[in-house]
Amino acid sequence: MVWMHKSLIRLGLVGVGKIAQDQHIPAIRGNPRFELVATASPHGSIEGIPAHADLAAMLAAPGGDAIDAVCLCTPPGVRAGLARMAIAAGRHVMLEKPPAASLSQVEALSRAARTAQISLMATWHSRETAAADAARAWLTGRQIAAVRIVWREDIRQWHPGQDWLLAAGGFGVFDPAINAFSLLTHILDGTLEVVAADLAVPANRVAPMEAKVTMLHDGQAPVTCDLSIAHPGTPQWDITIDTDAGTLRLSEGGHRLSIDDQPQTTDADGEYARLYARFAAMIDGGASEVDHRPLMLVADAMMVGHTRALPPFEF
Amino acid sequence: MVWMHKSLIRLGLVGVGKIAQDQHIPAIRGNPRFELVATASPHGSIEGIPAHADLAAMLAAPGGDAIDAVCLCTPPGVRAGLARMAIAAGRHVMLEKPPAASLSQVEALSRAARTAQISLMATWHSRETAAADAARAWLTGRQIAAVRIVWREDIRQWHPGQDWLLAAGGFGVFDPAINAFSLLTHILDGTLEVVAADLAVPANRVAPMEAKVTMLHDGQAPVTCDLSIAHPGTPQWDITIDTDAGTLRLSEGGHRLSIDDQPQTTDADGEYARLYARFAAMIDGGASEVDHRPLMLVADAMMVGHTRALPPFEF
Repeated sequence: MVWMHKSLIRLGLVGVGKIAQDQHIPAIRGNPRFELVATASPHGSIEGIPAHADLAAMLAAPGGDAIDAVCLCTPPGVRAGLARMAIAAGRHVMLEKPPAASLSQVEALSRAARTAQISLMATWHSRETAAADAARAWLTGRQIAAVRIVWREDIRQWHPGQDWLLAAGGFGVFDPAINAFSLLTHILDGTLEVVAADLAVPANRVAPMEAKVTMLHDGQAPVTCDLSIAHPGTPQWDITIDTDAGTLRLSEGGHRLSIDDQPQTTDADGEYARLYARFAAMIDGGASEVDHRPLMLVADAMMVGHTRALPPFEF
Repeated sequence: MVWMHKSLIRLGLVGVGKIAQDQHIPAIRGNPRFELVATASPHGSIEGIPAHADLAAMLAAPGGDAIDAVCLCTPPGVRAGLARMAIAAGRHVMLEKPPAASLSQVEALSRAARTAQISLMATWHSRETAAADAARAWLTGRQIAAVRIVWREDIRQWHPGQDWLLAAGGFGVFDPAINAFSLLTHILDGTLEVVAADLAVPANRVAPMEAKVTMLHDGQAPVTCDLSIAHPGTPQWDITIDTDAGTLRLSEGGHRLSIDDQPQTTDADGEYARLYARFAAMIDGGASEVDHRPLMLVADAMMVGHTRALPPFEF
């Protein structure tokens, strides 16, 4: 028997905002394969970890040449340029979702990663929720009759003051709704195609705050999506799928599963712990994972969509 | 020596509008491999050819079972549904550009064609212009410094009264500008990624009539696109590429080539003749060709773009 030594992965974290603080830091600290050795952010920092203004400064600083991998938690608009820089420097890269602001950027990054022989991981954290794999397993082999997505939350609660979300390339309602699309493409086999969309954009903003999107599954089953970030009160993050053998509901963003209204047992929580475990395995195996389908559904909705105006929005 | 008998391809034409009359009919009649056996259109017909109201009627009519292939020249919004029907009926399919209204539809059609083992051809007619291959050959191996696309024409001249072009999913300025993108992705190696866009939409329409799109080639060389269908007078369809060994200009939509302002010799004209020759070869060889990259650049521009209002537009 051969014991392989799995080396420590020295990680630099770029972007130290809410998602980094809430999710990435605990996951990195909870995984012995990773050591957080530096951060880069114009604003935030982590106590006890060397902090730099940006990725270039982080890589150029003393100890920067020892960084094996970077995780990019910045807003999506700047992510592709940073990823390209990290790949060119030979670092493995984990990307928060969505992996970039455009599909052509994702394709260019995939190609750059293959050329540089580094591991590129485009994460979709909702696929790691407790019930996602159980939903996928139950649906396999069943005939899909209809899908209804309701994904409604309050931007003031989840993205307080984050103007970038409503600017060009900020995704608006599709920033949370892409989580639903990442779940849907994970749990369903077959094709999903966007056929129509209605997009509601505040008069003083660029990105939609509400959207209705219509898709077809395998060219026939209707998929309707009711999406909003102008929904005060309790958020609703549900995917309901009617099949030839009952109705599946994935609720609370993928954390709860029921079949015909009967709650099902699921895995334990631990989205980001699973993401970091997968990233380590990818680096060990020389693999990459870049699934562009959730972003494609967003781009398609924007391309085929009919836009209408909402009253001006201020946080 | 073995002589292979290449059978006649009996073709049904769906959509008998301007592009079908101007380009497809002469190309089909000029290629002895094809016989035009039926048309389907709510409005148009071709003298001497059996005419049906739609694709389903065409396939169900006497002689419909002898149709080997269909060419879809309808507006893009309905193309995917018709293509799916034709593929399910085991017919080879040629798609006018763009192949469908959304990328996810193109992906679903590709998968359906593979499963059905039929030939699916997503055409990009501008790639068959006289100078396209000569441009590609000259650019191969040269370092790209900058690209400038100017694609400006008058919707009243080229799409008179065609309201669908300015409706949701109608593409607007990207209906002609996708020709530029199809040329650019054909003549350049390396990656193209959309980073920003400014989209100008008439107050009474949904699709943009003018757009500025910024891309990067291989992550560094700037690609600027100045696009309009609100440009009266002489159209301008130019791609200018600065390289380490001179400046290439592809003008008149791909029909003329110059290097450092010196006109170059190019192939003879014959876009649609080449498309039909390729389609026949694909059917003979059991091959398909579905390049989604030009449509991806359009979807990306729509997704990252900043939209602003133009005065109302009427034809």
